[in-house]
Amino acid sequence: MNLRVVLVSPRNPLNIGAAARAMSNFGCLDLRLVNAYDVAYREAKSAVNASQVLQGAREYATVAQAVADCALVVGTTSIGHRALEHPLRRLELGGRAIARKMASAPVALLFGSEKFGLSNDDMSHCHWLMRIPTRAEHESMNLGQAVAVCLYEIARNPAAAKAKPEVTVEARGEDMERITQLMKEILEHCEYIHERTGESMYLKVRRQLRRTHMTAQDANLWLGMLRKIKWKLLS
Amino acid sequence: MNLRVVLVSPRNPLNIGAAARAMSNFGCLDLRLVNAYDVAYREAKSAVNASQVLQGAREYATVAQAVADCALVVGTTSIGHRALEHPLRRLELGGRAIARKMASAPVALLFGSEKFGLSNDDMSHCHWLMRIPTRAEHESMNLGQAVAVCLYEIARNPAAAKAKPEVTVEARGEDMERITQLMKEILEHCEYIHERTGESMYLKVRRQLRRTHMTAQDANLWLGMLRKIKWKLLS
Repeated sequence: MNLRVVLVSPRNPLNIGAAARAMSNFGCLDLRLVNAYDVAYREAKSAVNASQVLQGAREYATVAQAVADCALVVGTTSIGHRALEHPLRRLELGGRAIARKMASAPVALLFGSEKFGLSNDDMSHCHWLMRIPTRAEHESMNLGQAVAVCLYEIARNPAAAKAKPEVTVEARGEDMERITQLMKEILEHCEYIHERTGESMYLKVRRQLRRTHMTAQDANLWLGMLRKIKWKLLS
Repeated sequence: MNLRVVLVSPRNPLNIGAAARAMSNFGCLDLRLVNAYDVAYREAKSAVNASQVLQGAREYATVAQAVADCALVVGTTSIGHRALEHPLRRLELGGRAIARKMASAPVALLFGSEKFGLSNDDMSHCHWLMRIPTRAEHESMNLGQAVAVCLYEIARNPAAAKAKPEVTVEARGEDMERITQLMKEILEHCEYIHERTGESMYLKVRRQLRRTHMTAQDANLWLGMLRKIKWKLLS
């Protein structure tokens, strides 16, 4: 993934570790740190389960150096209190723009410190800003979770949303009819279907069974269960 | 949001807290716990910054009780080692299906324990399973991050991906021309544009300036800067 995640002034080793894990989950392996609280960084890096991403992370003295090789620099923000001097895009839109750009050139995605976010100085290195669509009453996300959500959107495949759920083999009509017949015999024997209501109740059962949209596998299971019940009832 | 997040056998108080925070971010306020490790739950709940979501969480003895009022029950999985007996949908697709269902009836979204995920018994309560599209080399996500990513997809607004980036007032042609003229005067004075290359260089500069797609605000900034430079140069 032609993307560099840049954490600016992160303070909590757990967050640095969480960001690295989310990056690994979504195949983004280039982590950069600017002005990381030294103890936090060393602690995260020495954690027993520190990921490859974290081990390979690089430190930079300034944002300018961290994004020097990038053609597009995007900052993240939860906005709120300060007026932004930058174009602001929602993640749904910004994620698409980043994914497109990544096809031809490296992109940097900046995350600010847990407490203050990106400073105006950090933001002045950005072409535009991106915001995760959280609700107004609780805008600010946890750092590791924000990284995960952004990378998910960037890695997201829009075509998958339109895909057929899964390939299933529908039960054949003859199996459904066999199930319906077995059910009928059982229900007649139990006097659930009887002479007076017979036909209409039978049709109700048949319609219900058709609405279940059974797969061939489901139909086999039902045939087995119903045969056993019938055998027990009629023997 | 007509959605209940059900954490089954969570073990780490930080993860319970993180899940609650992501829920609050995305406006999903109904948290349910099944078989939570008691110490973890009490610890998370008593944390200084425990969210309203966490304070209002309810405990259930079984999955069946936790999902009793839900019309659709979806389990999350990172698959991998065990063959699944359930239809499996990628998050892009499953998230849409959940959002649609939520419009008419409550939906439950189940997350298993950090270490083992959902058991086969837990899964048997689900209508289908959902998977976050992580890479094969590192499938399993952190619990709090998985909750955040799922809720983002469910809250995601597909229309936003097609939105115009932002409303900006483009610089008017006359301002762009004023900038171009100022630039010309300055560059002539500095002998960057000179007699031999004059016209072609001038056109190059004009084309470049048009490609910057300045806003009205940008144009004002440039006019100010260039006027100052010209004044300094020619005075």
